[in-house]
Amino acid sequence: MWFTGLSGSGKSSLAVGLERAFFELGARVFVLDGDNLRHGLNGDLGFSDEDRQENIRRVIEVAALFSEAGFIVVTAFISPFQVDRAGARGAIGDGFHEIFIHADLEVCEKRDPKGLYVKARSGEIPDFTGISSPYEAPLEPDMTVNSGEEDFDTCLAALVNYATQVFDVAR
Amino acid sequence: MWFTGLSGSGKSSLAVGLERAFFELGARVFVLDGDNLRHGLNGDLGFSDEDRQENIRRVIEVAALFSEAGFIVVTAFISPFQVDRAGARGAIGDGFHEIFIHADLEVCEKRDPKGLYVKARSGEIPDFTGISSPYEAPLEPDMTVNSGEEDFDTCLAALVNYATQVFDVAR
Repeated sequence: MWFTGLSGSGKSSLAVGLERAFFELGARVFVLDGDNLRHGLNGDLGFSDEDRQENIRRVIEVAALFSEAGFIVVTAFISPFQVDRAGARGAIGDGFHEIFIHADLEVCEKRDPKGLYVKARSGEIPDFTGISSPYEAPLEPDMTVNSGEEDFDTCLAALVNYATQVFDVAR
Repeated sequence: MWFTGLSGSGKSSLAVGLERAFFELGARVFVLDGDNLRHGLNGDLGFSDEDRQENIRRVIEVAALFSEAGFIVVTAFISPFQVDRAGARGAIGDGFHEIFIHADLEVCEKRDPKGLYVKARSGEIPDFTGISSPYEAPLEPDMTVNSGEEDFDTCLAALVNYATQVFDVAR
């Protein structure tokens, strides 16, 4: 399940929520996000086009390993570019689900849980998605979660419902 | 569990055997080896010193992710150089176990399960460990399995015994 959305849209929180909900159902979810990849495996990569593509290639390969180990994998990265997400879909194939975690920029910037938007506005962080770098919203996502308008529990319930169906998890 | 040994010493077979034995005990083992890494995540890497180190860095990072997911990780690579294994021990810390899968070159070359020694002797494969590139045997491995002298089941039983103790797995 390839989550995409702005910083602050709730990708990681919802991914971890899904992991917990599925754990209770006896299904295993592993979350790949900035916390466990950007500072580890992909810590040598920057934000050039080449590095961005290598970042995604490695995410796909690690996801394949966890899939081999029996996990449903949720990736929670901004992944702002349509071409990258299309590439991931092509590499992963039928099991790929593009999930748009949709919250307007105004909402995300108001939340600003990590203080990143403030830094982006001041220029301290260059090329920040939504501020100084584009976000290309999915054109035909497999699912959209309106995390800007609906509360966390409603969004999570919709994700659990979707995932139990597509991955055939018994509830 | 960082397996090291010559090509043909039985690393992958024993790793998979351990995975199966532990599965039956309700403990999860994930094997990282050439089959699932060299052609995937590390498929962009060659055998230069720099690439060799990057290969090992990624193995360590992926092992950390699987460890986070509750797995005992077995890596099954020749890993011929002491300095690389020492680096892995340093990065992983207390949970690191260097396992020497020990079979003499003569035995491994006679087995030659993948026909690689023939190709190495003919020069078709350059820098092949044991033939045209050195293998630095562990000086103080945490465990040695004499896979050249003892049969598969004996070696596997010793590994299961060791691993159940160090990882506190109930039998």
